Amino acid sequence: MSTPLRIGVAGLGTIGGGTVKLLVQNADLLAARCGRPVTLAAVAEPNRNRNPGVNMDGVTWYEDAMALVDSDVDVVVELIGGSGGIALKLCQAALARGKHVVTANKALIAHHGTELARAAEGAGVVLNYEAAVGGGIPIIKALREGMVGNGFARVYGILNGTCNYILTTMRETGREFADVLREAQELGYAEADPSFDVDGVDTAHKLAILASVAFGCEVDFQAVHVEGIRQISAEDIQFADELGYRIKLLGVASRTDGGVEQRVHPCMVDKKAPIASVEGVFNAVVAEGDFVDTTMYVGRGAGERPTASAVVGDIGDIARGLRVPTFGVAAGSLARLPTRPMSEHTGAYYVRLTVVDKPGVFADIAGALRDHQVSMESVLQRGRDPGEPVSVVMTLHETVEADMTAALAKIEASPAVVEPPHMIRIEEF
Amino acid sequence: MSTPLRIGVAGLGTIGGGTVKLLVQNADLLAARCGRPVTLAAVAEPNRNRNPGVNMDGVTWYEDAMALVDSDVDVVVELIGGSGGIALKLCQAALARGKHVVTANKALIAHHGTELARAAEGAGVVLNYEAAVGGGIPIIKALREGMVGNGFARVYGILNGTCNYILTTMRETGREFADVLREAQELGYAEADPSFDVDGVDTAHKLAILASVAFGCEVDFQAVHVEGIRQISAEDIQFADELGYRIKLLGVASRTDGGVEQRVHPCMVDKKAPIASVEGVFNAVVAEGDFVDTTMYVGRGAGERPTASAVVGDIGDIARGLRVPTFGVAAGSLARLPTRPMSEHTGAYYVRLTVVDKPGVFADIAGALRDHQVSMESVLQRGRDPGEPVSVVMTLHETVEADMTAALAKIEASPAVVEPPHMIRIEEF
Repeated sequence: MSTPLRIGVAGLGTIGGGTVKLLVQNADLLAARCGRPVTLAAVAEPNRNRNPGVNMDGVTWYEDAMALVDSDVDVVVELIGGSGGIALKLCQAALARGKHVVTANKALIAHHGTELARAAEGAGVVLNYEAAVGGGIPIIKALREGMVGNGFARVYGILNGTCNYILTTMRETGREFADVLREAQELGYAEADPSFDVDGVDTAHKLAILASVAFGCEVDFQAVHVEGIRQISAEDIQFADELGYRIKLLGVASRTDGGVEQRVHPCMVDKKAPIASVEGVFNAVVAEGDFVDTTMYVGRGAGERPTASAVVGDIGDIARGLRVPTFGVAAGSLARLPTRPMSEHTGAYYVRLTVVDKPGVFADIAGALRDHQVSMESVLQRGRDPGEPVSVVMTLHETVEADMTAALAKIEASPAVVEPPHMIRIEEF
Repeated sequence: MSTPLRIGVAGLGTIGGGTVKLLVQNADLLAARCGRPVTLAAVAEPNRNRNPGVNMDGVTWYEDAMALVDSDVDVVVELIGGSGGIALKLCQAALARGKHVVTANKALIAHHGTELARAAEGAGVVLNYEAAVGGGIPIIKALREGMVGNGFARVYGILNGTCNYILTTMRETGREFADVLREAQELGYAEADPSFDVDGVDTAHKLAILASVAFGCEVDFQAVHVEGIRQISAEDIQFADELGYRIKLLGVASRTDGGVEQRVHPCMVDKKAPIASVEGVFNAVVAEGDFVDTTMYVGRGAGERPTASAVVGDIGDIARGLRVPTFGVAAGSLARLPTRPMSEHTGAYYVRLTVVDKPGVFADIAGALRDHQVSMESVLQRGRDPGEPVSVVMTLHETVEADMTAALAKIEASPAVVEPPHMIRIEEF
């Protein structure tokens, strides 16, 4: 087992740079643990100025990533990014040539995971993607191996550090979303185009992957219901606090009798729930197994070094000869499970209304709820200002989403309701 | 790969019963994930009344655990318990016969881990022990594999659910230790002889194992400094709350320039630290890697089903042909690292004194601290009662344990100090 494992890293951006650093700086440690040298043999990066700042002597530098396919590396590490394009082409070609593939690319796995898993299995090589979900947290390994004996009913988590940073900062400072987003962009915690993060798409990519591993089904990104955090106001966060909740953007995948439910949206979570204390750029994944019960995994969800840790975890498995099916079961056995539509989701709700403070308004609202069998748990009016708009906050007992939606449409149509209702789902753990 | 893996379970107590249940109830799931049947072939249990309540047709029942060594099982699962005796003899004999061994026995691994790892390596078989630390949490796998690229400076955790339950209940109810312990015994959360749990021995077993995996060193249980929670009073918990802390029994292993520090004792932890919110019977392990940064793993630390999940995780690895050195590196390469003695520990401290409320007392205390270069951060006297004993609480800035101990001895000798000082270390994360 003393043959070196030869690694080729494609893409020297943040994660690529971190991966190269780790492979060079911790080479002795890695060799001792893996029982063989793990050697950075090649990198592929068109921009020659992207030097990771470590000794690259003996490392072949290609400008074209596809050159790795024909090189003598054993493992191609795809850190280019993007849900298709060169990243997809590189992974397909590398697998076809019998090379192991490691990637941190959640968009790629969310869109092409099933197809790539089949290609890897057909070629008898490994496709690993630990860094695609939860940054440095070894959550794929925990689900696929550590909890291999468990059936999973639900897996959920805080999967996007940018959103969690924004929501945490909004709560701590009382500031509004747009203001905090701008600051996050200045600090480098959010992209210039923040849409993938704040509109929930990144979380949805990761959730679709988690669902596949937990439930043994094909990755079904299209089935994810996605909402982001742009609608969350400082007032909502304040009300949540008063009601005993924190607001978190969660991805939640549940296996129900009616099919798989995959949803990404802001959630009210009990302040005392352990996930509520996961703040700032940290991510957390909770897996509920039928034997292990509730387990939670917390760590940095992004960044050069944590993500490199996950990439090298995947490489270490290959060096040690550990092979596990991409999504936990043979690719040919991945189930096609029906999707439970969001309209059938059941849960509790928080609703914030802006209404004109006058007699009879509350009767209209209560009537709309009654007409759709939605049962109120609490109602809270902030201040009194006759004839002027005031905020009214309600929490509703567990109900079906379709009924809630219909009741809200009726409420919105009431002349005393001066803004579209703001609804946030309450998540029970 | 469709040859079944044949499992023999020794000991049908709580964990053995859960393991048998899992293997039978989730057999199809396990076979799909492992690519081969995982078959419960035999059990060994002298008490024929211990039936796990599942269909045991076709399962050979031995009364003598040693009979598994000569049977046709591929894996011997040792769930008998105890740091030596039959458990040790069984594991030694099974490894010598070329059978894989899975155990949940922390005392055994803490005392004989290095020797057993060498035996496993010599025989070319696997020794797995995920269930020995953190119950259902796959923490050994996370350290040994998921974070394989990281050097670790510190690993610590809440490793005993009984202690965490007692401390949580004391805080929630304001009751004293002895009272809550008695209730925990009635509820089955604590043993009739609670010493292993409340005196920190169980935590120390687990910590010694974690340190070995994190630092690549021989298991050194004797080097662990161990204190339990019997001295914690309701008053300490109340003061901790006022100072912004929670009291947790932690096991902390640090790799320092002066050697490895392994210590088990009650700690004051910042209420806002994620580990502070891990309550009741839950366990948590925090690993700090040089690339991944801080990661935390939370789950049930004991119980039939969570522990069975970890045992079957180990079995699943064997079924899939995954082999990792017992403590992360080849047994022959495990380092013998020097121990940093507790006297060289540096940290902040909380001290509660019972002193006679009269002029000059505080000058004596302050003088003793000054004489040993201990610097005070805050002091708090509860109430005034001239001439009578009152509680005084101090927090001390980071100092060396030997100086703190010397200062406390001098303080205790003061005639106005009517009880031995209560010292609790403050842990910084």
